[in-house]
Amino acid sequence: MDKIRIGIAGYGNLGRGVEMAIAQNPDMELVALFTRRDPKTVKPASGIPVYSTNDAKTKKDEIDVLILCGGSATDLPVQGPEFASLFNTIDSFDTHAKIPEYFAAVDKAAKAAGKTSIISVGWDPGLFSLSRAYADCVLPDGNTYTFWGKGVSQGHSDAIRRVKGVKNAIQYTVPVPSAIEEVRKGTNPALTTREKHTRECYVVAEEGADKAQIEHDIKTMPNYFSDYDTTVHFITEEELRRDHSAMPHGGFVIRSGRTGANGETPQIIEYALNLGSNPQFTSSVLVAYARAAYRMNKNGDCGAKSVLDVAPALLSAKSGETLRKELL
Amino acid sequence: MDKIRIGIAGYGNLGRGVEMAIAQNPDMELVALFTRRDPKTVKPASGIPVYSTNDAKTKKDEIDVLILCGGSATDLPVQGPEFASLFNTIDSFDTHAKIPEYFAAVDKAAKAAGKTSIISVGWDPGLFSLSRAYADCVLPDGNTYTFWGKGVSQGHSDAIRRVKGVKNAIQYTVPVPSAIEEVRKGTNPALTTREKHTRECYVVAEEGADKAQIEHDIKTMPNYFSDYDTTVHFITEEELRRDHSAMPHGGFVIRSGRTGANGETPQIIEYALNLGSNPQFTSSVLVAYARAAYRMNKNGDCGAKSVLDVAPALLSAKSGETLRKELL
Repeated sequence: MDKIRIGIAGYGNLGRGVEMAIAQNPDMELVALFTRRDPKTVKPASGIPVYSTNDAKTKKDEIDVLILCGGSATDLPVQGPEFASLFNTIDSFDTHAKIPEYFAAVDKAAKAAGKTSIISVGWDPGLFSLSRAYADCVLPDGNTYTFWGKGVSQGHSDAIRRVKGVKNAIQYTVPVPSAIEEVRKGTNPALTTREKHTRECYVVAEEGADKAQIEHDIKTMPNYFSDYDTTVHFITEEELRRDHSAMPHGGFVIRSGRTGANGETPQIIEYALNLGSNPQFTSSVLVAYARAAYRMNKNGDCGAKSVLDVAPALLSAKSGETLRKELL
Repeated sequence: MDKIRIGIAGYGNLGRGVEMAIAQNPDMELVALFTRRDPKTVKPASGIPVYSTNDAKTKKDEIDVLILCGGSATDLPVQGPEFASLFNTIDSFDTHAKIPEYFAAVDKAAKAAGKTSIISVGWDPGLFSLSRAYADCVLPDGNTYTFWGKGVSQGHSDAIRRVKGVKNAIQYTVPVPSAIEEVRKGTNPALTTREKHTRECYVVAEEGADKAQIEHDIKTMPNYFSDYDTTVHFITEEELRRDHSAMPHGGFVIRSGRTGANGETPQIIEYALNLGSNPQFTSSVLVAYARAAYRMNKNGDCGAKSVLDVAPALLSAKSGETLRKELL
């Protein structure tokens, strides 16, 4: 059987994760890496050829699915529609408020080109979205709670790094265990932002910086920290590197619903992730959806899609018969 | 908008659950109940008309989806293919070893009639199958563990009731907490049957029966109990009715996988259900899939399907746009 030919656009943590994930999926092969850097300076671990992003269109017939590994802030809003006019694509667009607009732009480009693009793939949006959707359909009378962490928030880490006197920093979002327990009991609590998550900051201060001032500036920062119980720990650059280089993450989606003639019966659905590496896991999800995009395009199902539009069997290398036998 | 017209075949716990679930889904209406009993003796809570199962075919144009609420042992193997030749159907066929054969029979009947039948819907098979499949695709290098309970096993309860001297009984399957914890840690333990679940039996003995003998007969029963650590409690008929009439159930599907260049990164996906009522929850899943069967049939997607073949968005009463906005 011919392998599905995969391209990667962008070689950061996510691109490297896709490269490793492809090696776990024998029905796929990696054929090209596109970068905006000088291709000669990029040395992928797998030794696949590296091209300039500008030359991507010359490879359009050699790639079945292009996995976009750029960021949601500036890369994907441009690359998403652009590449959707050349390739079947997968991306992890996660700027929630802009999904409708992004979906429309990608949909237009993909439909015009007869391509299939699955957007916002990963775990949130992605697997968490699936959990929320299935649970919402099965238990229409109920509330869904999403908790994130413990894990690094890149946006919050960046915000701390912009504080005067901060040399480096990392921020963990931590769900409040008692809140999760309360939700699991089916009491449907109304939880404030502060009651759901706490924020833990590990900060390397510049020499001679006013640590009390740094701590105050972080804790009172609007939007990012002022609505949370925030803890600030000062550590050395070496401790930061040694103890905080892994990128663990995870979280919980819990649906607390009720069934019965008078809604008298509590029903709880919980989905939880405990991830050793956020980018490696996200990449693994992207790769599974690349298989689906390839198949949907073969079936003539073009345009932009989200994970909610993809039948689970399309993600698997196994046949329908094997899936029914082994996993149903 | 026209409502989706639902029929129910069989009015036991599952049929009553479907009746209650339809009331939570305003885009559907219940139009007929079919029973093998004398229709005059069946009084559904919602007051919908009751017909003999034998007259079902006269109603084929008045029902969009028929939800089959019979059992897997004797009802569905006959009813499944029979009704699939008249209606779009949903069922909860759960005799695992016979799914391929059942799928083939239903597929043949449904395709010939231009109908769509989603088989083996519920939570296991059903939502647990989805969790197993998604997790298997996302983490191809790993192991999946399914734990059931705490919940009543009807088959095991029936087995106890056949023991000499037993008047009535109920059996709970209970997952072993330490085994779940071990799996969550990512150690990928090899667990024996005994290490995964224990069995708790609540038995009402006949007057003057030999309780020691009953306990021995239960604990040594092959297939059902001899491979498990089993506890037997003798209680009164009144205690059985008072403390054991609810039908709670649930369980856990845990995928323990590894990513990274050398599989060095642990990744854990967990799906858990904590159900106040097993039949009410199962019915709620059946009803959501009825919506999907209706739509798939409108789209010309005929034949037998499992939950693995159904895109999540098809289950929801919400539009694609609303789903992307609210749940993605």
